[in-house]
Amino acid sequence: MGKVICIGLGPGDPDLMSLRAHRTLAGARIVAYFRKAGRPGQARRIVEGLIPATAEEWPMEYPVTTEIPFDDPAYGAQLAAFYDLWAARLAGAAEDVVVLCEGDPFFYGSFMHLHARLPRERVEVVPGIPGMSGCWTATGQPITWGDDVLTVLPATLPEDELTRRVADTDALVVMKIGRNLPRLRRALAAAGRLDDAWLVERGTMPGETVRRLAEVDGPVPYFTIAIVHGRGRRP
Amino acid sequence: MGKVICIGLGPGDPDLMSLRAHRTLAGARIVAYFRKAGRPGQARRIVEGLIPATAEEWPMEYPVTTEIPFDDPAYGAQLAAFYDLWAARLAGAAEDVVVLCEGDPFFYGSFMHLHARLPRERVEVVPGIPGMSGCWTATGQPITWGDDVLTVLPATLPEDELTRRVADTDALVVMKIGRNLPRLRRALAAAGRLDDAWLVERGTMPGETVRRLAEVDGPVPYFTIAIVHGRGRRP
Repeated sequence: MGKVICIGLGPGDPDLMSLRAHRTLAGARIVAYFRKAGRPGQARRIVEGLIPATAEEWPMEYPVTTEIPFDDPAYGAQLAAFYDLWAARLAGAAEDVVVLCEGDPFFYGSFMHLHARLPRERVEVVPGIPGMSGCWTATGQPITWGDDVLTVLPATLPEDELTRRVADTDALVVMKIGRNLPRLRRALAAAGRLDDAWLVERGTMPGETVRRLAEVDGPVPYFTIAIVHGRGRRP
Repeated sequence: MGKVICIGLGPGDPDLMSLRAHRTLAGARIVAYFRKAGRPGQARRIVEGLIPATAEEWPMEYPVTTEIPFDDPAYGAQLAAFYDLWAARLAGAAEDVVVLCEGDPFFYGSFMHLHARLPRERVEVVPGIPGMSGCWTATGQPITWGDDVLTVLPATLPEDELTRRVADTDALVVMKIGRNLPRLRRALAAAGRLDDAWLVERGTMPGETVRRLAEVDGPVPYFTIAIVHGRGRRP
């Protein structure tokens, strides 16, 4: 029986993959990755040209992404069955399977739903540079100084909770934005931080954009990240 | 005039450096790094064996680390003069200077004090895997699930603020522990999270230890990190 080795690919630029992730990928016989059905998939796109020609590819296609609200019980049930199925397939593989994961696998990554279903001793995880790090680096400014507190929030939280937490931190990262942008904008404004907020799309990838959040109107992709920099102690 | 290229080295295992950081280092003519006077320095230790034999090394030795409390005006003044001096030296170099930085340079890194003093167009930053990511990977458990809120705190905060913030988050990372461990332990206990807390020393490095924080008595190094895992939505 093989191992299941999940490699964090980092924020998107393949050059920001770790040496270990790169070497693991170069030696892979089976490569698995999540994607939305009918789409190439972000993780697979990052490693384009880096997978050995002899490797087998196992695309793991989500049965549902945004078609059902995530708090609908049907959403959880379909995803649970999907993760059960793939955990069983990975565990049953005769050889090592390398699972691709954008960013850092243990930081809001989908891999952890497989990890929770696999025997601990069969799994290895290679950390990666989180997407948020690629985004704050893209802004050209440090995210935290001295004794700054950093809060990482999903934009899916209720508006009053977003507002309260935005007002109560030094540095801020907001994930999972997409259609939640208008609510996030109101929360930032109510907390008095709107003018300090940046919006980063496709951080470290081709077409990267860094804009003031207050100036962004239109819809943005789900993986867009908002950043408010800390202003802590600095000699 | 050259550029100043700061490369994030990641959490400590040289194998977790990015391809770009590794390539930048391999081509370096001048390599600068911070260290405490008389010590080898953690960043330099990570790249042992990886610096070209022909490269010049510029150790940047802190004039003060823990000899004066950080809120003493003399502490800030000495560090400010030190950063001014080194920013001028780096800016005056005729060739590129590669500056080493543990973890991610823009996440509580010392490099940002040089960055703030250098012309923006002369500086490049290569992000790295933050130390906290190496630590939560070492625990073998994901740090954040679903809509978890993650709070990153320095253990230097006042005890009542530590307690309040520990009680008000899903996932928690505490940095800068060292002599602040007893205060952190009291804050975790008061917030009802002591039994969920882990303490990771030398994450991803030789001698890595992962222990329940409640069971650790003795003094721990400053760079020890505490972790409380989130327990959010999981199908």
